Amino acid sequence: MPNVNRQILLVSRPQDHASVDNFRLVEAPVPTVGDGQVLVRNHYLSLDPYMRGRMNDTKSYAPPQPLNQVMIGGTVGEVIESRNPQWRPGDKVAGLFGWQEYGLSADGRDLRKVDDALAPLSAYLGVLGMPGVTAWYGLNRICEPKFGQTVVVSAASGAVGSVVGQLAKVKGCRVVGIAGGPEKCRYVTETLGFDACVDYKAGRLYEDLKAATPDGVDAVFENVGGAGLDAVLRRMNAFGRIALCGMIAGYDGQPVPLQAPALILTNRLLVQGFIVSEHPDAWPPALRELGALVANGHVKYRESVAYGLENAPEAFLGLLQGKNFGKQVVKLI
Amino acid sequence: MPNVNRQILLVSRPQDHASVDNFRLVEAPVPTVGDGQVLVRNHYLSLDPYMRGRMNDTKSYAPPQPLNQVMIGGTVGEVIESRNPQWRPGDKVAGLFGWQEYGLSADGRDLRKVDDALAPLSAYLGVLGMPGVTAWYGLNRICEPKFGQTVVVSAASGAVGSVVGQLAKVKGCRVVGIAGGPEKCRYVTETLGFDACVDYKAGRLYEDLKAATPDGVDAVFENVGGAGLDAVLRRMNAFGRIALCGMIAGYDGQPVPLQAPALILTNRLLVQGFIVSEHPDAWPPALRELGALVANGHVKYRESVAYGLENAPEAFLGLLQGKNFGKQVVKLI
Repeated sequence: MPNVNRQILLVSRPQDHASVDNFRLVEAPVPTVGDGQVLVRNHYLSLDPYMRGRMNDTKSYAPPQPLNQVMIGGTVGEVIESRNPQWRPGDKVAGLFGWQEYGLSADGRDLRKVDDALAPLSAYLGVLGMPGVTAWYGLNRICEPKFGQTVVVSAASGAVGSVVGQLAKVKGCRVVGIAGGPEKCRYVTETLGFDACVDYKAGRLYEDLKAATPDGVDAVFENVGGAGLDAVLRRMNAFGRIALCGMIAGYDGQPVPLQAPALILTNRLLVQGFIVSEHPDAWPPALRELGALVANGHVKYRESVAYGLENAPEAFLGLLQGKNFGKQVVKLI
Repeated sequence: MPNVNRQILLVSRPQDHASVDNFRLVEAPVPTVGDGQVLVRNHYLSLDPYMRGRMNDTKSYAPPQPLNQVMIGGTVGEVIESRNPQWRPGDKVAGLFGWQEYGLSADGRDLRKVDDALAPLSAYLGVLGMPGVTAWYGLNRICEPKFGQTVVVSAASGAVGSVVGQLAKVKGCRVVGIAGGPEKCRYVTETLGFDACVDYKAGRLYEDLKAATPDGVDAVFENVGGAGLDAVLRRMNAFGRIALCGMIAGYDGQPVPLQAPALILTNRLLVQGFIVSEHPDAWPPALRELGALVANGHVKYRESVAYGLENAPEAFLGLLQGKNFGKQVVKLI
């Protein structure tokens, strides 16, 4: 048995921008497995924008990440020791063990069995995990686009946005992405099949969005906020829906204002913030549909992989700046 | 028969702030009544914040008010001549004849019969008219507050806000108003029966709101936007609802940004813009309920009355600055 569990702790809170100094790599003993417990070797960590909010000590939908404890996060891996009849060594599982190499489940109920014959393990942190269900929920339960309507998705090449747009294409919508740089935009249109993609770094955000949405915009899946949301608000049709999933533009620093909120009124929009973990009923149908669409090739995905636990902090900071391309994971083994 | 119909036209669009120079008083002949038509002598004009938006030539939920035509608006008055079997001289009617002394209905179908034995005519421009139904719709169909929840209402002494708060009290909510100045706040708590009222002019908006909402805020009926909305967003409980009815803070000038829109996400809020005229199904139940509550004294109302058509522009500009106290009307006769 291994006897060292490398972990990354949050050791200080960002004043404004997060930095690698907020984290520390430590070594702890691999836990001893007690009655009913399950020990998992993590193969991949998930890095997600929501983690930035947890680094702050402010009121939010979840309590802040405690200092000097293992940074939270989703993981996938393999059971290596079990004293629980529900789980056997070799089982592949998704869990929430955070930024460490080994995780101990107290009773096995926080583990989700995954099938690495159907898709690679890391996919269960992305399209077949929390980001995929997030996309499915926001699109189907909030945006509710009809055939032929125009849907705009920000962070379009990312873990959530890429799934949103592909699901909307399956529904027969016109889908316009917003992404950073020509390479991501090409991927969004050529590989993911969006109808158009606006490069927010090109300096013509509103003009390009207007050209890409000749019939206006009926639904928005918002992952970013900031200038992109300001622009799309000006293109909304009456009775449009905005699923507010992420506001990454303001996560790592000061809040970013919304320039013209009165447009919500004049266009009679619905804006709904949501957190997918509060909608457990959505997970089974979402995962069934996503599994089928991944299998038949209608939903594609892409990953940015960082290697080694020690590189998690830098990969996370890169994610906040849009340096990732697709779902950001950290490979541990 | 009278032969002069005084009218106020919109003759120019505001560059930034509206002014009396945007309007012109003219005299036109009283229209001749043709077959099927109904001539109404207007007794009261309604002045409402939405009219400011119509003065601009920008995309909104309604086309702009055309230049050199009678300024739009709700009216109540009396039929003085009818060549329509549905209407007889002496009938009291609500209509949409705008800022003029006489209005001609082409077929009588745009008139709503009102009963001046049940309430004074002017009430049909306020609590028993569009503002009352607006309050009822936003509270019952969007805010949906439960017994014991906290509801915040801005422009609390105004035509809409005063009704919202009283309806919410009937439902057993804790109701907190926001209004400008101690006199309005006293009216809101002492006469209308709100639990508290925050004076936004006192310079302690957030602190006073916090003190008045010890259990946070579950629902907001927003008539104003700006600093009040920023403050209340910081007090929202998870899954709160915001009915966006008006954004008067930004109507007469530049748009007012929302400082921290990410709070919509972190608190998983629903924000819904609405225009009551698009929900005709709400009018009959709303007017039934409001009629009963006015009759039994559970809903009180107050008016600011300007006298004479020529004073409508100045009264309207005052409304935009919060100089009115309750529903603003113009008495013509």
